[in-house]
Amino acid sequence: MRDAYHEELDSIGESLVEMARLVGSAIGRATTSMLDADLTLAENVIAGDQKVDDLQHDLEARAIALLARQQPVATDLRIVVTSLRMSADLERSGDLAQHVAKLARLRFPQSAVPRDLHATILEMGQLAQRLMAKAAEVIITKDVDLALQLEQDDDEMDLLHRTLFQHLMDDRWKHGIETAVDVTLLGRYYERFADHAVSVAKRVVYLVTGEHADEIQAAAPVEGA
Amino acid sequence: MRDAYHEELDSIGESLVEMARLVGSAIGRATTSMLDADLTLAENVIAGDQKVDDLQHDLEARAIALLARQQPVATDLRIVVTSLRMSADLERSGDLAQHVAKLARLRFPQSAVPRDLHATILEMGQLAQRLMAKAAEVIITKDVDLALQLEQDDDEMDLLHRTLFQHLMDDRWKHGIETAVDVTLLGRYYERFADHAVSVAKRVVYLVTGEHADEIQAAAPVEGA
Repeated sequence: MRDAYHEELDSIGESLVEMARLVGSAIGRATTSMLDADLTLAENVIAGDQKVDDLQHDLEARAIALLARQQPVATDLRIVVTSLRMSADLERSGDLAQHVAKLARLRFPQSAVPRDLHATILEMGQLAQRLMAKAAEVIITKDVDLALQLEQDDDEMDLLHRTLFQHLMDDRWKHGIETAVDVTLLGRYYERFADHAVSVAKRVVYLVTGEHADEIQAAAPVEGA
Repeated sequence: MRDAYHEELDSIGESLVEMARLVGSAIGRATTSMLDADLTLAENVIAGDQKVDDLQHDLEARAIALLARQQPVATDLRIVVTSLRMSADLERSGDLAQHVAKLARLRFPQSAVPRDLHATILEMGQLAQRLMAKAAEVIITKDVDLALQLEQDDDEMDLLHRTLFQHLMDDRWKHGIETAVDVTLLGRYYERFADHAVSVAKRVVYLVTGEHADEIQAAAPVEGA
């Protein structure tokens, strides 16, 4: 009986990893679709989000069934509740990748991103994808150090975001308002995507240590800044 | 024993209502702080978000304790799990109100919003506050019709959002890039805030009917559009 239970718990973990992989791939492809103005790829990402939504619905149903049938306590209970939260983070990340792809579609056959910002947006897309790959790794390994690393990686995203804003605010900006609006929203999408990846990792930290990631980092003087 | 249990369940509901009231008030005050460039009010909203975060942490801890101790099944289990999700929506709404207030603080002593957009932003702020008040009402009354109404109200937000974009894209836009960026982000904050209010209401629908709000609306031809 308990074996079937732990199998079910494992399968919830596997679904989370699959969701993380799907949304990580989605943000990468969405970025390419935008930079290359590739409509087929954009449509592909947009349609693909349904898979993520389905996985989340299915995961939620299984988690609730598991709570009802097995009535886990202590750590097992925390795992199930935390899985529900992680699935919400991942589902939302999928939406954000979809938003990027929708912007690509909206501006097709142009690229929503002016040439001189391609490098920055490409970096943001790649970093977002890397963060999500690490989040998946953290779900699998429950590696607290790796999880705490994600916050540092997220600082990189903040830097890139700031670079984007500097471009926007530069007096030499010559791409007009519509592009400024697009780039503002894009920056926001990548930043939020990264936030969700970090959030997934933090939840694993909480699961493993019983402490919130912020508390652990505050306790370590080097990270406390 | 069951009485203490239902008291605890009620108190979780009360916390949700309190959170909804706090974030509804926060978005209203944040809007005022921005339109009036009122720094004290902005600081007030920014600091006040801690209360919302504390309520959420507390609610989560109580919900998990309740799952562990009482091991509810069926409807009661659904109520607890759904409450966790609603609290996440409300916590995030609080963040969004805080973002508006932070923008007010950043641009002080100027207003982040140019004069000719005050009316639209004021309407967005008021609508956001109204939506959250309705969401609180829905939590209290579990009124499915009222909950489904929120989606219609949200269409109003989409309209206002579109008005904002029309202003931005108008060739006569004369407020420069920085303001365009501010207004773009603001529009996004209000839109997301409204989404979370709608999401809270939808979750109540699911709780009461066992069906997702979209399914109910799809079944009613008038609403199906």
